[in-house]
Amino acid sequence: MRILAIHPILEREGYDELTRKILSKVAFQGTEIDVVSLERGPASIESAYDEALAVPEVLKIVVKAERQGYDAVVILCMGDPGVAPARELVEIPVVGPCQASLTIASTLGERCSILTILREAVPTFWRLARRYGFEGHLASVRSIEIPVLKLWDDRDAVFRALAREGRLAIEEDGADVLILGCTGMMDLGERLQQQLGVPVVDPALAALKYAELLVSLNLSHRRVALSEG
Amino acid sequence: MRILAIHPILEREGYDELTRKILSKVAFQGTEIDVVSLERGPASIESAYDEALAVPEVLKIVVKAERQGYDAVVILCMGDPGVAPARELVEIPVVGPCQASLTIASTLGERCSILTILREAVPTFWRLARRYGFEGHLASVRSIEIPVLKLWDDRDAVFRALAREGRLAIEEDGADVLILGCTGMMDLGERLQQQLGVPVVDPALAALKYAELLVSLNLSHRRVALSEG
Amino acid sequence: MRILAIHPILEREGYDELTRKILSKVAFQGTEIDVVSLERGPASIESAYDEALAVPEVLKIVVKAERQGYDAVVILCMGDPGVAPARELVEIPVVGPCQASLTIASTLGERCSILTILREAVPTFWRLARRYGFEGHLASVRSIEIPVLKLWDDRDAVFRALAREGRLAIEEDGADVLILGCTGMMDLGERLQQQLGVPVVDPALAALKYAELLVSLNLSHRRVALSEG
Amino acid sequence: MRILAIHPILEREGYDELTRKILSKVAFQGTEIDVVSLERGPASIESAYDEALAVPEVLKIVVKAERQGYDAVVILCMGDPGVAPARELVEIPVVGPCQASLTIASTLGERCSILTILREAVPTFWRLARRYGFEGHLASVRSIEIPVLKLWDDRDAVFRALAREGRLAIEEDGADVLILGCTGMMDLGERLQQQLGVPVVDPALAALKYAELLVSLNLSHRRVALSEG
Amino acid sequence: MRILAIHPILEREGYDELTRKILSKVAFQGTEIDVVSLERGPASIESAYDEALAVPEVLKIVVKAERQGYDAVVILCMGDPGVAPARELVEIPVVGPCQASLTIASTLGERCSILTILREAVPTFWRLARRYGFEGHLASVRSIEIPVLKLWDDRDAVFRALAREGRLAIEEDGADVLILGCTGMMDLGERLQQQLGVPVVDPALAALKYAELLVSLNLSHRRVALSEG
Amino acid sequence: MRILAIHPILEREGYDELTRKILSKVAFQGTEIDVVSLERGPASIESAYDEALAVPEVLKIVVKAERQGYDAVVILCMGDPGVAPARELVEIPVVGPCQASLTIASTLGERCSILTILREAVPTFWRLARRYGFEGHLASVRSIEIPVLKLWDDRDAVFRALAREGRLAIEEDGADVLILGCTGMMDLGERLQQQLGVPVVDPALAALKYAELLVSLNLSHRRVALSEG
Repeated sequence: MRILAIHPILEREGYDELTRKILSKVAFQGTEIDVVSLERGPASIESAYDEALAVPEVLKIVVKAERQGYDAVVILCMGDPGVAPARELVEIPVVGPCQASLTIASTLGERCSILTILREAVPTFWRLARRYGFEGHLASVRSIEIPVLKLWDDRDAVFRALAREGRLAIEEDGADVLILGCTGMMDLGERLQQQLGVPVVDPALAALKYAELLVSLNLSHRRVALSEG
Repeated sequence: MRILAIHPILEREGYDELTRKILSKVAFQGTEIDVVSLERGPASIESAYDEALAVPEVLKIVVKAERQGYDAVVILCMGDPGVAPARELVEIPVVGPCQASLTIASTLGERCSILTILREAVPTFWRLARRYGFEGHLASVRSIEIPVLKLWDDRDAVFRALAREGRLAIEEDGADVLILGCTGMMDLGERLQQQLGVPVVDPALAALKYAELLVSLNLSHRRVALSEG
Repeated sequence: MRILAIHPILEREGYDELTRKILSKVAFQGTEIDVVSLERGPASIESAYDEALAVPEVLKIVVKAERQGYDAVVILCMGDPGVAPARELVEIPVVGPCQASLTIASTLGERCSILTILREAVPTFWRLARRYGFEGHLASVRSIEIPVLKLWDDRDAVFRALAREGRLAIEEDGADVLILGCTGMMDLGERLQQQLGVPVVDPALAALKYAELLVSLNLSHRRVALSEG
Repeated sequence: MRILAIHPILEREGYDELTRKILSKVAFQGTEIDVVSLERGPASIESAYDEALAVPEVLKIVVKAERQGYDAVVILCMGDPGVAPARELVEIPVVGPCQASLTIASTLGERCSILTILREAVPTFWRLARRYGFEGHLASVRSIEIPVLKLWDDRDAVFRALAREGRLAIEEDGADVLILGCTGMMDLGERLQQQLGVPVVDPALAALKYAELLVSLNLSHRRVALSEG
Repeated sequence: MRILAIHPILEREGYDELTRKILSKVAFQGTEIDVVSLERGPASIESAYDEALAVPEVLKIVVKAERQGYDAVVILCMGDPGVAPARELVEIPVVGPCQASLTIASTLGERCSILTILREAVPTFWRLARRYGFEGHLASVRSIEIPVLKLWDDRDAVFRALAREGRLAIEEDGADVLILGCTGMMDLGERLQQQLGVPVVDPALAALKYAELLVSLNLSHRRVALSEG
Repeated sequence: MRILAIHPILEREGYDELTRKILSKVAFQGTEIDVVSLERGPASIESAYDEALAVPEVLKIVVKAERQGYDAVVILCMGDPGVAPARELVEIPVVGPCQASLTIASTLGERCSILTILREAVPTFWRLARRYGFEGHLASVRSIEIPVLKLWDDRDAVFRALAREGRLAIEEDGADVLILGCTGMMDLGERLQQQLGVPVVDPALAALKYAELLVSLNLSHRRVALSEG
């Protein structure tokens, strides 16, 4: 199985390769992962506007990916940019980390919290949870107040902030599952889970595995016309 | 990875082996599947009462499975019997096909229908959908009116009934995804999907793949006490 | 009218008789109450696992109760263990305290809180509220952190803990109705109501009265096939 | 226990006494029931406007009832006219048949239908179901198209219309519980239940019994200020 | 276009004229606004009881307004008293500030808070939000604890209390939109919005503008019988 | 007040001017309306893909519109393309017809139906209704099966199809309000309303009027940081 993971941003030095390594650690034998970034588009996605600029480029890559024989596409951004239109263009599964994470979280507990980056993103996650039908499972959205572009600078600071907000989500908001609110927090879920003792869903990994699941079940979002009876 | 699939019923001649073959077709390389039935319990599960009798036996097998080193357990019945108590007994993932199917269906479309066996089961599925938080995604529950124990006698009759009710679910109830309502309809999803042109979730296969997903993401439903800060 | 109340646990010295007295205080003239415990099963119910073990024994008692001419059965545990399967076995009403309490609470105010025993039970009540369709009425679930088996040791300590958490539920979570989260808190509701000034639903008493209501309205959960037109 | 049932309409010859007899059949020993109609107000309630005119008169009766020592008040109209303001005026329970019926129906099945009188009332019941938080349990609202004032003229015609629409509610809308949509259908529930084989909630009787339940549990909707800690 | 705004209370010296001036500031050119109070009825509306007394008087005014050629009616009270029955009496739009405010707030953000006057009103707003279908958008209801009749005495004190609770709603409850909870807070929304930086919906103004919108779209809540095909 | 309405498609001969005329008929005195189409982008929007291509162009126009002094922007497409990102770019209100229509419909009745163009769009409207929080108000989505580009060819045929599906929505789905599902059905709402006797929301007109409402209330979706206390 071949899966293409797309960073809907301009490539940052070595980030595609780093991502490929992290995703490959959880992939099944036989899954081949490629990671690409955009050649044109935003440097990071911190708003719906950044997403809007990225989407047409993402769509080109998705269409090309299907032609190149990829079995599924994963779009590595918690806003799931381009997932809906991409599903109309190709027959292979297109997976967004936000929907995959909320979906999985709903099966691990009763109330989840999303730990996002900046306060401005809080309403966006309420909107996405509502859109996917998981509003009733969302106990809270908390922010760590570290900008996207600094997520990789001081990984320990990011972890400490996640641990702090995650603990508050559990103790004050009644969360029993946590979701990392940015694909740039990739690879911190496991450690956070060990420290806090509740399941922590890592959206980039969740999206990859969810794509594998759909491919091997031969399920996709195609909407074919009814064949004759 | 080793996964144990449990039929929460007395073994029927050759059914465990047949199930193992069907599940193995969709498993990833490296996943080893065993299938067991109960030594004591109901011959089939057609009611919450049958489930209640099966659950203590299922729990014994689940506990033993964890000790034997299985990485996850799947309980092959759409009522998800024993899933909740089993999750309190073991740390490995315990997956029920109903929750796995509803979860996956919610990501493939906006409104799903469950095609169940007998009319009496219809309220049960509304209750389960409500419990898992997917009530808003459930367009309808339709029954094919063929008893569980006859599901394997005339496979074509079962398929025709599923195609008939599935088509009605799409045309009259507005469903854009279908879920087979019984693990005994195993292996008919693919064919139904081809005929009707909408995604069809096969709950036994969905549960197996969902278990694989959780294991490789190192996610489970454990509720460990908070460690010290 | 004869109602059988079942403790789904092994009998504790004098507990059945104590329960009978407490329930009888609120029963109508003409209601005869019997209370039984299990001969085999768990010593207390603190988990879904304990429930699973109790259920088959509960079901035997329920079936026997109908044959003995009881008009309704009440299962005295907030997890409502065995209620769903029992409803398939008998035609008389089978009432669980959790559903009865949530139902009644929803008519007394807009937002209720459940005061449960241990933190571990919090997700269970969210799940039950969701299953019964009352998720939107549940403002919070709070725990008093006193183990079930100690509930009868220091009744004043239990009351003080309930008063403390109940007050927080009102002031911080916006609750206008409280539900005692364990049938072992039986008989403390009235006093708590006086102290806190909001309605407090006592689940054991609520379940008994709800059973009386159903019997005298000749309502039950039977699902009889449609008679011919 | 003394309960006052109020017809929020002008008295029709003998209707109060007839109602008293019907309600008394299901009352517990020790419950004394009085029934009154308005001295000023609408002849029947077929709209929110009729309700609005009735409410101030109903409130006067409710306040007087509390002074006279009644333990609870039941307002015999499916729009629950005056229930909310009455609850602010008195400390005794004030019960409306619509809320009582929806509440009870939610515990007897998963999806209920209301059989109302005229098509114009359909949106009103959706609004009431939403207001009480039972929108998710409401499968449909169907009308029998017989005016309120003719409900007592040809009781068999009313019954046949209820049976026809009730059957459609079960077969086409998936209802597993029915609610009579008018207190003027009083006393037809039992017979309909026998014919259709699903629980049928009779709102006038349900409201009476629910009032008895609240009184004997010493529960009411009072909102007393918090006493000092 | 002519719109009649009704204070469902006895007139307070100069209040009608003050209101007319405030509403006129936001009205479109060509909208003529009249404001009336009741000749008989409550001095202020602080409870459902006050509302019930006001409603019959309000309805008389509404009917007369339609005959006098008004194009719409606005009822200036956050409990929307008389809106539902008035809609049955007239064909012109009848607008309540609570529904108008919740509706508009739902389009400006994901989670809103209502800043009401007294704690006793909190459940009322949860009930209204549920009735109108906006329960999922309501993050909290907070009270400023200043009685209605004092709202105009010390306008600065009212503003400071609103600013304090509004800030808490944003920071602790996650609100991204605020709604003033009383038409008597009229004209404070703009200033609060400037101070807090989130949209603040002023219900009296919102209701007026919503009435204008409906009139110019020729939309109303009439429920006319189906004409022949 | 100056409002810019944007067709997120390439201009069709005379369509901008036609639209301007239709919108101007319902605008208030003092509202100046301009209509523009895209210079680059899709010829029509029939899919999320078409939307994605249009969005970056729409955003450029929105930003320019704010600089040019427009007071609000309306995006004339039922998928509300670009509304979310545009709201992050400008401080003036940006209104989408789908959200405006659902919002208004929710205040005119209890259950609405959307009459869309093609069957393929049905899930999209369920998703949008869920996203905006109006899922509980949506009774059905029905399609007239006439392609977007033919909407202006035979206006009578479009009207007849709308009347046919609208009638079915009322009679079979229980709708009491209808929403035209495409801005290309502009100007047919009034006639449909007269024929069917229920309110019919015309999304293009609704969006324009909603923009006017927000401007004159000085409300927008800005998310300004909290100023210091």
